[in-house]
Amino acid sequence: MTTATHAKGLEGVIAGETEICNVEQTSLVYRGYEIADLAANASFEEVAFLLLVGHKPSSDELGAFKAELIAERALPSAVVEFLKTSGNLVNNEYAVPMDILRTAVSILSHLDADCQDNAGDANLRKSKRLLAQIPTVIGHMQNSIEGKDFIAPNANLSHSANLLYMMTGSEPTPEAEKVMDVSLVLYAEHDYNASTFTARVISGTLGDLHGAVTGAIAALKGKLHGGANEAAMEMLADIRNDIGSDNDLGKVTDWMHQAFADKRKLMGFGHRVYKNGDHRAPILHGLGRKAAQARGEDFIKLFELGEMVQKIMEDEKKIYPNVDFPCGMTYFTMGIPVPQYTPIFVASRITGWAAHIMEQHANNRLIRPRVAYIGPAPRNWND
Amino acid sequence: MTTATHAKGLEGVIAGETEICNVEQTSLVYRGYEIADLAANASFEEVAFLLLVGHKPSSDELGAFKAELIAERALPSAVVEFLKTSGNLVNNEYAVPMDILRTAVSILSHLDADCQDNAGDANLRKSKRLLAQIPTVIGHMQNSIEGKDFIAPNANLSHSANLLYMMTGSEPTPEAEKVMDVSLVLYAEHDYNASTFTARVISGTLGDLHGAVTGAIAALKGKLHGGANEAAMEMLADIRNDIGSDNDLGKVTDWMHQAFADKRKLMGFGHRVYKNGDHRAPILHGLGRKAAQARGEDFIKLFELGEMVQKIMEDEKKIYPNVDFPCGMTYFTMGIPVPQYTPIFVASRITGWAAHIMEQHANNRLIRPRVAYIGPAPRNWND
Repeated sequence: MTTATHAKGLEGVIAGETEICNVEQTSLVYRGYEIADLAANASFEEVAFLLLVGHKPSSDELGAFKAELIAERALPSAVVEFLKTSGNLVNNEYAVPMDILRTAVSILSHLDADCQDNAGDANLRKSKRLLAQIPTVIGHMQNSIEGKDFIAPNANLSHSANLLYMMTGSEPTPEAEKVMDVSLVLYAEHDYNASTFTARVISGTLGDLHGAVTGAIAALKGKLHGGANEAAMEMLADIRNDIGSDNDLGKVTDWMHQAFADKRKLMGFGHRVYKNGDHRAPILHGLGRKAAQARGEDFIKLFELGEMVQKIMEDEKKIYPNVDFPCGMTYFTMGIPVPQYTPIFVASRITGWAAHIMEQHANNRLIRPRVAYIGPAPRNWND
Repeated sequence: MTTATHAKGLEGVIAGETEICNVEQTSLVYRGYEIADLAANASFEEVAFLLLVGHKPSSDELGAFKAELIAERALPSAVVEFLKTSGNLVNNEYAVPMDILRTAVSILSHLDADCQDNAGDANLRKSKRLLAQIPTVIGHMQNSIEGKDFIAPNANLSHSANLLYMMTGSEPTPEAEKVMDVSLVLYAEHDYNASTFTARVISGTLGDLHGAVTGAIAALKGKLHGGANEAAMEMLADIRNDIGSDNDLGKVTDWMHQAFADKRKLMGFGHRVYKNGDHRAPILHGLGRKAAQARGEDFIKLFELGEMVQKIMEDEKKIYPNVDFPCGMTYFTMGIPVPQYTPIFVASRITGWAAHIMEQHANNRLIRPRVAYIGPAPRNWND
């Protein structure tokens, strides 16, 4: 038995090296560019290229990249057929959109000529294909849930606008497109978070890219990870349901104190790495609040409630919101169905996952830790 | 940035605690019982119960457990329908059985009433269900690949015998059943191997059991992990193809020297933990060789070739076979198609994965390490 002590959940343990991302207390950097700079100045397609290829695209590179993505948006018929049943699966309550998305990506692998090839060029082709296909999966799934016909991708629209269009059938306003685009930029990459680490452990066995993404989707689903954006909105809905929508500060405080007393886990707060706040949160909060302003009183009140909850958490618990907290309110304001919040996270994080899978395959070592045994002492089966 | 140094691939790093399994240089223990004891004295169903429930079953408990597994073998029709297409998918060469199995498990989740419930009792029900269903998936898939009708599970047969029956349509001999059963006992659990660790990272986000198993299958597929049993057999087939089947020691030695010179990775040898040999290997080698003896000259010669390769690796490289090396030869001797070797590994390791997922959910902490950034220095997007 190795005798080293261990950190539960690998907290603070460095598990590898990366050129892709640097998460620090006071900054988040994608390949050298700070997240606030990217959120203000780069489109999601530019950030996706940066993560996947490694540098800021030239104008020609960006044009070619966008054209490739648009060309790859349609899905093979077997996946379309599966998604036609997805509405029944979700509406009968055993399945949720994140599970459907996981299955869809798994089926996509069977139809991808590059599936079994872990070489860098094949991995890049697969990465672009999945990036292009995932919004179509989400759109078709949402159409299926609502019992509507599927909407074909719109080649005139950006990644963000097309994602919204395919879910709703309406071209989004430039403002809504911008909010979605920035949220995808913020969600694209976050070093060795649990889903990316899952993707690296899978690809470290020389498992293929689609398989690694399938596992990463399963990890992102969890409420302690990507599932938190849905859970945060569900919590705000619970508060409104319990105390009404008048945002009475006394009632909100009472609700929170009861939640503390019940040891209820309040989602969208705290972070394994960021101890003094997640600097993605205020960026998205500001944009979401602006969107709420445009949508009217009820949405403004949702943000005001969120701000009260946030202040109580900060004052009484010294715990700060992470990006999932404003994301929940923002996507709600945009009219997106709650169970699609985490699939939309996938539509962004696929870029970070794919970049890490390619980095893992390019300089591989099996990720295989040890464990401390605390089970029964030696014994004999026939005793 | 955390400043601790890191071990590439988390080699030697203790990532948690477990009551399930202890891997040491000189022993492998499942909940206190040594692997040689279990291989000699316990059936796979007994070992599965031990891993999932935590203790050796009483006679009544074992009877009830076996009955539950037999009752859960049939698949929902949506999975049967998917598997009907699996032969086309595999035969057109983009897909492999491990990928089909991953998709099938992902679809099974949509139809499982316990899917979204991470409580211990729900997890145990799902674990038993998957344990019962996976051999049916493998059997139907192999029937589909061969263009045959699906074979219904046989309630009179053990887990091992039924697995072989469903693939071939013939009830196995008691000797073949025993060899399969011992191989499943040997493969059932191995602490924080890469696929189990994947399952723990996924369940550590509070992702569900089916999702965690889906990711684990993707990890086990890799040639540096479970895929090694297929790769080991493919290597022996390559040697036979190149030098003929007369087992000329000079030719084998030349082949190996050429492989060393080409830096070809020889599969089924070496292990992240075991540095002086994997003690599961001789157990399975002995049983496989006995099976070869019964099947005739060609199979005996395969084992003789394997023993030559093994001796050259030991003498010249001081690298020892792991359990995947005899497994490849053994399953080949049993007439199992090579691409099903790793799926059969899943039919066993599902027990260890499920035990770890339940242990993770019962005492959870998100598994989220850090990473050392070695990428570009700070720069501005608009520069």
